[in-house]
Amino acid sequence: MSKEKETSEEKEARKEAKDSLKNEVKELRTRLISHMQEIRDAKLPIIVLVEGWAAAGKGTLIKELISEIDPRFYNVTSPVITPEKEARYPFLYPYASAIPENGKIMFFDSGWMEDAVRKYLHREITKEIYKDRIRSVNEFERQLRDGGYLVFKIFLDIGKKEQRKRISSLRGNYSSEWRVSDEDMWQHNEYDLFRATYESFMEKTGKEIPWHVMDGTKKRKTVRDTLKLLLKGVEKALEEGRYVGKPFKEEFPLIKMPKLREVDLSPTISEEEYKTELKKLQKRLAELHDIVYRKKIPVILCYEGWDAAGKGGNIRRITKPLDPRGFDVMPIASPIPPELNRQFLWRFWTRLPRSGHIVIFDRTWYGRVMVERLEGFCTEDDWKRAYNEMNEFERQLTDWGAVVLKFWIHIDSDTQLARFTDRQNTPEKQWKLTDEDWRNREKWPQYEEAIDEMIEKTSTENAPWYIIESNDKKYARIRTLKIVIKALEKACEEHLG
Amino acid sequence: MSKEKETSEEKEARKEAKDSLKNEVKELRTRLISHMQEIRDAKLPIIVLVEGWAAAGKGTLIKELISEIDPRFYNVTSPVITPEKEARYPFLYPYASAIPENGKIMFFDSGWMEDAVRKYLHREITKEIYKDRIRSVNEFERQLRDGGYLVFKIFLDIGKKEQRKRISSLRGNYSSEWRVSDEDMWQHNEYDLFRATYESFMEKTGKEIPWHVMDGTKKRKTVRDTLKLLLKGVEKALEEGRYVGKPFKEEFPLIKMPKLREVDLSPTISEEEYKTELKKLQKRLAELHDIVYRKKIPVILCYEGWDAAGKGGNIRRITKPLDPRGFDVMPIASPIPPELNRQFLWRFWTRLPRSGHIVIFDRTWYGRVMVERLEGFCTEDDWKRAYNEMNEFERQLTDWGAVVLKFWIHIDSDTQLARFTDRQNTPEKQWKLTDEDWRNREKWPQYEEAIDEMIEKTSTENAPWYIIESNDKKYARIRTLKIVIKALEKACEEHLG
Repeated sequence: MSKEKETSEEKEARKEAKDSLKNEVKELRTRLISHMQEIRDAKLPIIVLVEGWAAAGKGTLIKELISEIDPRFYNVTSPVITPEKEARYPFLYPYASAIPENGKIMFFDSGWMEDAVRKYLHREITKEIYKDRIRSVNEFERQLRDGGYLVFKIFLDIGKKEQRKRISSLRGNYSSEWRVSDEDMWQHNEYDLFRATYESFMEKTGKEIPWHVMDGTKKRKTVRDTLKLLLKGVEKALEEGRYVGKPFKEEFPLIKMPKLREVDLSPTISEEEYKTELKKLQKRLAELHDIVYRKKIPVILCYEGWDAAGKGGNIRRITKPLDPRGFDVMPIASPIPPELNRQFLWRFWTRLPRSGHIVIFDRTWYGRVMVERLEGFCTEDDWKRAYNEMNEFERQLTDWGAVVLKFWIHIDSDTQLARFTDRQNTPEKQWKLTDEDWRNREKWPQYEEAIDEMIEKTSTENAPWYIIESNDKKYARIRTLKIVIKALEKACEEHLG
Repeated sequence: MSKEKETSEEKEARKEAKDSLKNEVKELRTRLISHMQEIRDAKLPIIVLVEGWAAAGKGTLIKELISEIDPRFYNVTSPVITPEKEARYPFLYPYASAIPENGKIMFFDSGWMEDAVRKYLHREITKEIYKDRIRSVNEFERQLRDGGYLVFKIFLDIGKKEQRKRISSLRGNYSSEWRVSDEDMWQHNEYDLFRATYESFMEKTGKEIPWHVMDGTKKRKTVRDTLKLLLKGVEKALEEGRYVGKPFKEEFPLIKMPKLREVDLSPTISEEEYKTELKKLQKRLAELHDIVYRKKIPVILCYEGWDAAGKGGNIRRITKPLDPRGFDVMPIASPIPPELNRQFLWRFWTRLPRSGHIVIFDRTWYGRVMVERLEGFCTEDDWKRAYNEMNEFERQLTDWGAVVLKFWIHIDSDTQLARFTDRQNTPEKQWKLTDEDWRNREKWPQYEEAIDEMIEKTSTENAPWYIIESNDKKYARIRTLKIVIKALEKACEEHLG
């Protein structure tokens, strides 16, 4: 319909429709803002992922959504996609590190979908890796939802013709020309290929957390529909309370492990053999560290164990030969507020090594199914779900190429008592012994049960548990060194670098 | 002395000296380790900066120093020097962000000296900028020392011949060849130039916190001397307690500012004018945001003001026209433990914008001389010193090219009371009013005195304060927008981009 032919009534009707839409948006916006304090009080974290075509108006949509919201309640992030060969962290790292804390909204101005699709179409990653990423995305989103996050996924759609028009207009203007990247031009030229891939991506990732395709040519209508969508989700969550996901079964290739009580703790090593072996193994580890660094293999060593089992000394024997520039030890204590207020794996995501580096976790994410389980710091559903969630997390790490090894430093109860007593009686060791250690000791049977279950359910082929016999600490150190060396040798061999 | 000519007595003596040095190192190391828990208890943060020639053995020295220390007590960082034209943060950012928390040691495997010297010799920065960086380094180190940090600075020295020998040996070996960078070769070729520059840098930065030049060819002796140095500093600090720096006077080009009570709060704006102006100014701000982004100008807007003065609404009028990808609002609440346990500016260093981005601080580092001063959260020396420290910090930001504007959103006491009462009586506003607000209100006179002093002492030409009359919030918004626009226009004009 051309403007010349519009009758005055039609004109009137159009204006009326526009005004009514404008008012509707205004009302919806006010309603959303009125919920902000409740969202904070309910500790509801919200993720709004806005994907879509170049020049579809993602930034503008987000601007409209946040308009009038107090900046204390939200953040916007526009992750930069690092070319695959320069990427030093796992695929999901930029997104998993940017999740909001409880009571806040994080708007992603494009995110994991664009990242995966673009790299796939650029052939920076193989079809197989692309499939793994789709799987990871499903895991990531489900974990967030199950952890109480509201996740909204929007795709802003425009046709090829419309995109051409917008790109031309941007490029025709000096002050906006820089906004059109080579990447955008390439997408436009390969519009059909991109459309097919976006659609298939959405189909494969829309089962649990649905996608909402919005019309990028109808700006105001899209703002209204998105506001409606957010409001529906938020109001439901405020009414029903924060969602807690149910545990579920997923098949992982598990290694059959013994129960702790079945482990023979008698092995020892002579002082002489210990010294010789230690020297030899540390020399070898230093060589391997060099190769790992050059081949950019990420290494993640996870230490758990009974109090006084000898974790600290064991870790020091590993770090001794390492180049300090290439490793970090991450002691994991109780979570601080910004950690407590996010999905439980966040504080580990943000502590991952760069590729080529080694990180040693002194205690790990497995606190979820030990202390958090036994002390009631999370719900039963939370810790029961966590076995799968941690297996998925570790698979994402090994997908990335990381070596992930998990050590349970094991002693028996008598040995622990002897060491506690020794610590108590030796002034320079007293700081190592706290009242909490004694309290935990009283719960030995409950812990043993939890640990047995943990090792049974999470010793996967890609990220296995090793129970390290540590009644003789020296034996334990040698054994751990050997396991690390063997795994690194294997990785260095397999890795083309 | 060649080995052939060594008599058996000489040989014996040499061996004895070596063994005695070995034992000495062992004892010193044990002594250092024995202090670790006290260092933690005394909340003593320690920085060990190891600078020196390529192939001088910086990594090896650090490895020897940390050997046997429990990894919970230290970290090692080897900052990557970003080429100047790719740097998106101020010069000191990588170092200021990496300072340790109380009770921990951070080893820097080269740092700010290498960064400044290398860029200067590469002519990535001008002589003038280099001088500013030397000044910043002195400020940075002094601020750390005055904030209770023990700062040790070591330069590992080797001669040109020795360096050549080491580089050749590294390059001759497949597994170590990658360790020699083009940068290292260049340094070697320009050895004399580097030596002169290192020496002059050390002379210019050694007055308050001294440099210790160590012999890189005498590995064990250097380990011993460094351990001795650390022990001397640590034992003194443990005995005397954490150092608190005294306030001192430094000249800054201050702008003469009125006292708060002298400010005429009567200006208002009509609803009509407000609407027209707001629209016009926001449009202009959007255009400028584009230019700022393209020219990579960092922008830092600081908001302070009385409770209920209208900070939030004022900020929202600034952010409304901005592209959400290019700005962040940083609400500053009470510091959390990792922040409390570091020099007070750390939590602001780590929140700086990338160049080309805008960060709006909703409350700022000036809490130091307001709430922290009045509530006794820091010592008198601390807050009195802070005026200078904050002026220095801001000068480092404007040296980097940032636009730094500071707003005091001002109302009178009656207006505050009226707004508090309104908040109390309006259900959807009640969350904005806390008991603390009422308590703070009772301290209005003390706050007013502190604020007057703050504005008097920190309104520098490079980072000025603006007292914004906000009895009429709309007037205040328009005025703030105009100031921001004017400053951005000026910056965009001056910046070649």
